[in-house]
Amino acid sequence: MDDRLKKQMEFVLEADKIKKIGRQTYLHDASRKENDAEHSWHLALMCILLSEYSNQEIDVLKTISMVLIHDMVEIDAGDTYAYDEAGNATKRERELKAADRIFNILPPDQASKFRTLWDEFEEGKTAEAKFALTLDKIQPLMLNDATDGRAWREHNVHCDSVYKRNANTGAGSIKLWEYAKGLIDRNVEKKNLRSGDE
Amino acid sequence: MDDRLKKQMEFVLEADKIKKIGRQTYLHDASRKENDAEHSWHLALMCILLSEYSNQEIDVLKTISMVLIHDMVEIDAGDTYAYDEAGNATKRERELKAADRIFNILPPDQASKFRTLWDEFEEGKTAEAKFALTLDKIQPLMLNDATDGRAWREHNVHCDSVYKRNANTGAGSIKLWEYAKGLIDRNVEKKNLRSGDE
Repeated sequence: MDDRLKKQMEFVLEADKIKKIGRQTYLHDASRKENDAEHSWHLALMCILLSEYSNQEIDVLKTISMVLIHDMVEIDAGDTYAYDEAGNATKRERELKAADRIFNILPPDQASKFRTLWDEFEEGKTAEAKFALTLDKIQPLMLNDATDGRAWREHNVHCDSVYKRNANTGAGSIKLWEYAKGLIDRNVEKKNLRSGDE
Repeated sequence: MDDRLKKQMEFVLEADKIKKIGRQTYLHDASRKENDAEHSWHLALMCILLSEYSNQEIDVLKTISMVLIHDMVEIDAGDTYAYDEAGNATKRERELKAADRIFNILPPDQASKFRTLWDEFEEGKTAEAKFALTLDKIQPLMLNDATDGRAWREHNVHCDSVYKRNANTGAGSIKLWEYAKGLIDRNVEKKNLRSGDE
């Protein structure tokens, strides 16, 4: 087998590990929590269906590529829960180290392509990165809503934290952010999220 | 919320069920079997990385869209193991019924787009469908090889069945089929697949 294909297939097998990286979000029926591969698949599907709501025109293939690999660094760095302050303090450093190792399994041109996509997602400045980040925030909100706020209740989350974390969600899509706000507010009413001085 | 967005979001939540449809293939470390969402994510990633090996030029976005939804009918129809003859006899009918229900949750234009993509995948005649089918066959071969043929050994599979099932795998990519044949032959040598009159 030639060296290029060998490296690509080594990466394809390495990528399988993302199926074992757990997230804090429960599936729609709260039967278990989802993992990074499932989450990434869901974002890619949403990207196809919802790209019409992006504030700016986007390259859909580029955006899908971004969401398919956006969590791959967690193979080494692990998933950091959105509301875990200690974990978030070291997250960036751990993820940069992971990106250096994991993407470089690929042949140089593809390693560079994936690293550039991941950096662009992390930076969140282009139209594609903004929309990808919007999807990345809205998908767990939908699942939290579907499970009557299960993960929020377990972690005793305050709605201010959710709003703070979603400060830029409207930057990718005003329409989807309006939808998401409706979900948050409904869960405040249902006491699945704390509010005020609670 | 307008009716279009409501239907799209209903579909996004319905799609979550695919994370619960189990397959017979074990993850790389044989810790558990994978599910349809994980499998579909893996194929989409492979599509980005390996499209250069397609026999014919393909529209990568279209092919990714195809693999992302190719198993969605299994939400109703369930996964049918490749070597389960009884299950395979009723598979087509069950999946057609599922496609009618599931894709029609979407607004008409997107329902029609997804149904057309799924029909095209099932028919396997276009360049995109051929390549998607090749990926769909090669991914479990890679995981079977990585687990020392675990699922094959458990089902006592004969290499002739694997070759028969892969009769068209080269139609999408001769290069990837050559690679896959190497994996099959290695597992025959290791007695993970039966061969001859065994």
